[in-house]
Amino acid sequence: MAETKAPDSTRRSERSRRAIYDAALALVAEVGYAKTTIEGIAARAGVGKQTIYRWWPSKAAVLLEAFLDLGRQANEALGGDADSEIPDTGDLEADLKFVLRATVDEMTDPKFEAPSRALAAEGVVNPELGARFVEQLLEPQLQLYAKRLAAAQEAGQVRAGIDLRIALELFTGPLAHRWLLRTQPLSHAYADRLVEYALYGLAPR
Amino acid sequence: MAETKAPDSTRRSERSRRAIYDAALALVAEVGYAKTTIEGIAARAGVGKQTIYRWWPSKAAVLLEAFLDLGRQANEALGGDADSEIPDTGDLEADLKFVLRATVDEMTDPKFEAPSRALAAEGVVNPELGARFVEQLLEPQLQLYAKRLAAAQEAGQVRAGIDLRIALELFTGPLAHRWLLRTQPLSHAYADRLVEYALYGLAPR
Repeated sequence: MAETKAPDSTRRSERSRRAIYDAALALVAEVGYAKTTIEGIAARAGVGKQTIYRWWPSKAAVLLEAFLDLGRQANEALGGDADSEIPDTGDLEADLKFVLRATVDEMTDPKFEAPSRALAAEGVVNPELGARFVEQLLEPQLQLYAKRLAAAQEAGQVRAGIDLRIALELFTGPLAHRWLLRTQPLSHAYADRLVEYALYGLAPR
Repeated sequence: MAETKAPDSTRRSERSRRAIYDAALALVAEVGYAKTTIEGIAARAGVGKQTIYRWWPSKAAVLLEAFLDLGRQANEALGGDADSEIPDTGDLEADLKFVLRATVDEMTDPKFEAPSRALAAEGVVNPELGARFVEQLLEPQLQLYAKRLAAAQEAGQVRAGIDLRIALELFTGPLAHRWLLRTQPLSHAYADRLVEYALYGLAPR
């Protein structure tokens, strides 16, 4: 983006940017990743395709930014700031349940669900897009769990020696798996059980 | 299938069936589910498309049976019988590690991986196919874990009151998630950690 634009131009740019994100997410949800084109996004957003090419090099780049923006909106709707961290009240179990319940709500929100499924499905069979999806969208979210678990480990609430990058998958993995493959319904009760089982284990204590 | 065929005809049928399975799996891996057709499978298998329509009502039906057959072959290659159960040596941790390591091997075997990804990706965005995939392929495999965990619960190695259908997701969910989205590499060491963390929990004992 040019840095010398007048305020009016900036407002117009912001409106166009928002229209492009919305169009990209709606289109990928309707026709899938493969059939989504820059031309289709431009037509739906009511902008020229040169406007899109000026800001993004490819449809993958537009979509990834549209998803990042959607994630920021979801965080703000939850009352957090745009790059919300996982709360640390000192009670790991309560904090994880809070975030996992919010994740269930997001996963079952049609605004989020349809475009996310389209992007995830493409990532499953398209390693290049999958890698960008993981690096730019998924891994930064997972690292928030790693950070919260590190604080808990420091506080003696997670065993020393536990690999936190694996540990976080004990609750995020099942949730994503159930959502992606629709094996069983998602619910707050399910989110709670995952956190309890992951923290205290299946074996008797 | 007609039940009155002569042995020669049965052998020919068996060869055709195998050729159709192989063609269906190869094709879906190469072009994806949407572009796989009965005509394409027939051409590649060297049979008439009427042969396929005589045995299966749709490409989804052919593919699901081809995957069931692939699963049986994998079980046999592991030294089990076709519908292998999870071993019960009395040591839950060792039995789960054994099976999860074998699952890692299967997931990273190109013969299994490419067609499985194509089918899973389609299931993510196609609820009807996804439901058949879960009901016929995935859930029966997950129920083997439920059964093994039930025996362990009976033996006092899993806490009373634990929901076993959720419990099994603590190790199968992360494995599938890591495989589907390629977040991190799959390895035997990773499978072992998942089992240990799920059984003993993240919190200090």
